[in-house]
Amino acid sequence: MINETYKRMLQGKSVIRELSEYAAARGKEIGYDNVFDYSLGNPSVACPREYTAHMIRMLEEKDPMAIHGYSPSLGIESVRKAVADSLNRRFGMDYDTRHIFMASGAAGALAHALRCVTKPGDEILVFAPYFPEYNPYISHTGAVLKAVPADTENFQINFQALEEVMNERVTAVLVNTPNNPSGIAYSTETIERLADFLRKKQSRYGHDIFLISDEPYREITFSGADSPYVSRFYDNSVSCYSFSKSLSLPGERIGYAAVNPRCTDGDSMAVMFGQISRGIGHNCPPSSVQLAVAEVLDKTSDLSVYETNMNLLYSALTRLGFQVVKPGGTFYIFPKALEEDANAFCMKAKKYDLILVPSDNFGVPGYFRMAYCMDTDKVKRSIPVLERFVREEYSAGQARG
Amino acid sequence: MINETYKRMLQGKSVIRELSEYAAARGKEIGYDNVFDYSLGNPSVACPREYTAHMIRMLEEKDPMAIHGYSPSLGIESVRKAVADSLNRRFGMDYDTRHIFMASGAAGALAHALRCVTKPGDEILVFAPYFPEYNPYISHTGAVLKAVPADTENFQINFQALEEVMNERVTAVLVNTPNNPSGIAYSTETIERLADFLRKKQSRYGHDIFLISDEPYREITFSGADSPYVSRFYDNSVSCYSFSKSLSLPGERIGYAAVNPRCTDGDSMAVMFGQISRGIGHNCPPSSVQLAVAEVLDKTSDLSVYETNMNLLYSALTRLGFQVVKPGGTFYIFPKALEEDANAFCMKAKKYDLILVPSDNFGVPGYFRMAYCMDTDKVKRSIPVLERFVREEYSAGQARG
Repeated sequence: MINETYKRMLQGKSVIRELSEYAAARGKEIGYDNVFDYSLGNPSVACPREYTAHMIRMLEEKDPMAIHGYSPSLGIESVRKAVADSLNRRFGMDYDTRHIFMASGAAGALAHALRCVTKPGDEILVFAPYFPEYNPYISHTGAVLKAVPADTENFQINFQALEEVMNERVTAVLVNTPNNPSGIAYSTETIERLADFLRKKQSRYGHDIFLISDEPYREITFSGADSPYVSRFYDNSVSCYSFSKSLSLPGERIGYAAVNPRCTDGDSMAVMFGQISRGIGHNCPPSSVQLAVAEVLDKTSDLSVYETNMNLLYSALTRLGFQVVKPGGTFYIFPKALEEDANAFCMKAKKYDLILVPSDNFGVPGYFRMAYCMDTDKVKRSIPVLERFVREEYSAGQARG
Repeated sequence: MINETYKRMLQGKSVIRELSEYAAARGKEIGYDNVFDYSLGNPSVACPREYTAHMIRMLEEKDPMAIHGYSPSLGIESVRKAVADSLNRRFGMDYDTRHIFMASGAAGALAHALRCVTKPGDEILVFAPYFPEYNPYISHTGAVLKAVPADTENFQINFQALEEVMNERVTAVLVNTPNNPSGIAYSTETIERLADFLRKKQSRYGHDIFLISDEPYREITFSGADSPYVSRFYDNSVSCYSFSKSLSLPGERIGYAAVNPRCTDGDSMAVMFGQISRGIGHNCPPSSVQLAVAEVLDKTSDLSVYETNMNLLYSALTRLGFQVVKPGGTFYIFPKALEEDANAFCMKAKKYDLILVPSDNFGVPGYFRMAYCMDTDKVKRSIPVLERFVREEYSAGQARG
């Protein structure tokens, strides 16, 4: 018989996806060039040439069985070693091959890590604003998502709110820096303070509290941003990474979980991830993609367009009177809407073919997200439209007040 | 805190994997050519040239964003349509795009289908002998695996045993034809009888019973075998397919679930699979692999070596006095061991560098599996060794009795 849980989920469509579908449909009417589609966080720059070149060379020269054969369920050993070496070199860590688990993007890494360090009924803390897909990731583990209210001043961590939400049932804390949707990177000070806080709670409660770090935007940071490597600050940590954004390979489903060598059961956790894989029917990311990515671990796509776009939007938004915190990375910006109801605000923007995502699903009402992964030219063309929208829909006084 | 369930799973290593690791280690000592490694079901022939050629052409000519961009969570629409068209053409079905869900191999397809049509506490029937990984696939859904004892005469379905095991809690029945480990294909007669049986039970119990068909070996059938397309015979059915064996791409994690258009909620089931994906952190198979596979849907690797190997082994085994049913497909054969304890039998074989898998984990004690996906030359060289093993370890009279 059809499982009613999944049947009910048919009702709950993703707001982001609906807006993106609307933008595509509208694009068919007026030309997609004329739709200022800030809905989807889909990379807008090509993968590095070296990735393509290496993939072609493998396909031309290597034994197909070596490229397309089964990967061990924890990932191809040489690839895991290359990932460990790269992280050690770049972030002063001491990962070994056994601490790396290849996963189908950060989503896959998170699904494994969250399942491994919690049991049904446990609480997992997330910090608002947060990626709405954390809801299904967490609810399917049987644990309960609890959101810590935002510090809307700067979107760092609201420690007073954290103290209020924290309790003995919490066994994991999930952070995402640089952050989707705010674009903010947690500072060294923020992470140090969080690590201290968690260590104290661990010793008070007498049990582990894991820090699960979701890092798909780790390589997209802007000049001047302080965006340190989270796992350096806390032993019970797992770093969940995706190559989707840094190498512009979101469809290839490739990432990894890096288990802190000093965490509880650190030497066997990746093997446990492998056991979890057996139950969810996903054994490993594609073998050829693992092999090709291992050759370009220290490279990225040309990510500079994101900073260019951010600066253009940040300056336009502040000029137009929006309250907005300057992003330290990602390709998102998260301004306050010009009326309390962000849904109403975004509906009005739609009339101008400005596709903005209201913030309610991110756990902070009254804001909106713009994903500015697009050509700079389009961002530039959108600014006068944004200006007209604000002028016509919101009185000058109100907008600038 | 580390989840104790997964920690306990660390103890339960896969027998097949242990044997395969032993074979690899032994290969380093005496040369892998001298290890008759019948342990792993890993394709031994290259993927079709057309697959490689198409992948290279895409990488050289297409926009990287189009190849590597996000796939919708149900799969790339054009690929789903191509799969539906191919199945309709080949098996007289009437699938539409909406009935196809792209999955990471048959494992991914099964994980989605089994979750969707059961709820925790339901029973799922499997037929012995069966693939041991069905245990984690099913236990992670919260449903309970119940095995129907084998008909060891011919490894078709033991309908008397099925009648005894069937009860009202059963909401899904899982078949695998051609079968791992027996190599047997279910005949038209078997499938018709199973479909009749299930229809009667559905109407008696007043609820759906889904037939989930695991078909990674569908394209590997041998001359004379009657191996029909399961979903043609029963409306409440989902066909779970993998390209791992037919195209020799096991590492690329690509397959699909095809939902029978006439099944309950047939038009929305693939969307429910998409919802399940969100919770297990696996969004879709790799985009480039989806696109390349769509170009070679009606092709296969050169699979003839498997039939050649099967004939050689079948004739040698029968000559040596083994009781064995002739496979109709796959690259497995499943003879009865020459002593009651298949583990003891396989341990003795190991001394001759014959790596055989004892059958206990397949739910039928006293047999062993040989995966003959290897060069025919190696199969030929293994036969005198098999002969010597039988002669030295088992008296001639016993072996031929």
